[in-house]
Amino acid sequence: MSLTIISSIKSHGGEQRIYSHASRATRTEMVFSAFIPNHPVGQKLPVVWYLSGLTCTHANVTEKGEYRAACAELGLIFIAPDTSPRGEGVPDDLEGAYDFGLGAGFYVDATQQPYAKNYQMCTYLEAELPDLIADHLPVDMGRQAMMGHSMGGHGALTIALRNSGRFASISAFAPIVSPLACPWGQKALAGYLGDSQGAWLAYDACALIEAGQRLPDLLVDQGTADPFLETQLKTHLLVEACRAAGQEATIRMQDGYDHSYYFISTFMAEHLAWHHSRLSGVG
Amino acid sequence: MSLTIISSIKSHGGEQRIYSHASRATRTEMVFSAFIPNHPVGQKLPVVWYLSGLTCTHANVTEKGEYRAACAELGLIFIAPDTSPRGEGVPDDLEGAYDFGLGAGFYVDATQQPYAKNYQMCTYLEAELPDLIADHLPVDMGRQAMMGHSMGGHGALTIALRNSGRFASISAFAPIVSPLACPWGQKALAGYLGDSQGAWLAYDACALIEAGQRLPDLLVDQGTADPFLETQLKTHLLVEACRAAGQEATIRMQDGYDHSYYFISTFMAEHLAWHHSRLSGVG
Repeated sequence: MSLTIISSIKSHGGEQRIYSHASRATRTEMVFSAFIPNHPVGQKLPVVWYLSGLTCTHANVTEKGEYRAACAELGLIFIAPDTSPRGEGVPDDLEGAYDFGLGAGFYVDATQQPYAKNYQMCTYLEAELPDLIADHLPVDMGRQAMMGHSMGGHGALTIALRNSGRFASISAFAPIVSPLACPWGQKALAGYLGDSQGAWLAYDACALIEAGQRLPDLLVDQGTADPFLETQLKTHLLVEACRAAGQEATIRMQDGYDHSYYFISTFMAEHLAWHHSRLSGVG
Repeated sequence: MSLTIISSIKSHGGEQRIYSHASRATRTEMVFSAFIPNHPVGQKLPVVWYLSGLTCTHANVTEKGEYRAACAELGLIFIAPDTSPRGEGVPDDLEGAYDFGLGAGFYVDATQQPYAKNYQMCTYLEAELPDLIADHLPVDMGRQAMMGHSMGGHGALTIALRNSGRFASISAFAPIVSPLACPWGQKALAGYLGDSQGAWLAYDACALIEAGQRLPDLLVDQGTADPFLETQLKTHLLVEACRAAGQEATIRMQDGYDHSYYFISTFMAEHLAWHHSRLSGVG
């Protein structure tokens, strides 16, 4: 498999790149961004995955996330994938809603038509893209961390819970903690996986923790002024699931912050330093 | 005069606000952004003005400039105005080009019709907006700094040169240093001011320096991979003008950087720290 460099722009001493490639999993052309800090030739760097929220592409965090200064200082490669397959022929929400279809892949492998053909974001992120990155970028795949925002926080939590041992640390901004328990999740999982909730459990962080899966360590920041907190995000369900299961977690309510990149960028450098300390084995 | 708050979002401990107001200078509704760090009640803070480049609104630097962490740490208010009047009835470039009319006010007071009625960005930025900010925001107008990018670098330099003593420090990213000597500037100044170049001299940083105007201190960063360096920006003209006039200046060529916010954000925190040291009287 090959990667095409769409752009490579110098920033904070490193290179902010946009790549595209033909994906076997989604049967579409996929785009992602990668920040590669300046580093000695031949050295491999730890990698932080960042999964984005509803409506986003790779571009939102790449432009607004304010991660490059910290990644350059700490020597972290930062990968930002897209949130769904895109392109001609990829089916969208029937009414064009923002919370299903394009920009809303929910990090699942769809089993329902017409979505199953392209919406294979779980396989894309768990298998295809890691292989591609390992082949083409100077990454140390033995040192990976994962983070995400909102729907991407859900993605980060569930991918890490299903792939025990792969990630040194997991963090999230305003994650959807239980798709089974919120309208966004119920719509998405029903649409992609069908009405039988048994198939949903593998994509629900709280259910996975209750079923015995564990994370190495977890940091969550959630704004108290987030308009989706009560109806969709329901952070308290994650607090309760972690407490009941004995899962170590730092879940912080941040006074007055909303759901935007103004919130995310405030805590981005702190999250990256937290990941770095765990990726370095000194956490 | 009154200000309307369009939005106020918590970020880096402070408030990122968007304001609008009816402008007497431009006879339009004008929008600007202001980041106000968390600060003790009643305290007034130094203010940094940031003037943007062609095609930009207040939003570009507000979203991509990565200035909030430094402003929060240093206690600086950051003001980002728009680059032109906008709205129904405001005349644009006759062919809709990006380098004249909307998004391209060039920080001048137009004398030519049909632009003279609205394109009064010099008066707007030198008189109207400072008065408005002094009345409504917790700014110490005795401690002001100015910076800008590209066309906004031109604006920062020329406004500071014409208003001796107002600003403690001036910096720019990839500024247009001599509109008289580049196609962007020649088109804009002819369109707004007419063909007589005598009227252009007040809006040309190199000409103002040659005429004896001075800056308190100057920091410029210019990327060597900037596609506009040779044809439009011509940094060497500023170097030569400063040298000939004995104007103190630090003008740095930054290897491999382009004209984008990936470049600007790399050096933003350093510029703000430089301004802060001068605003604090310890530079």
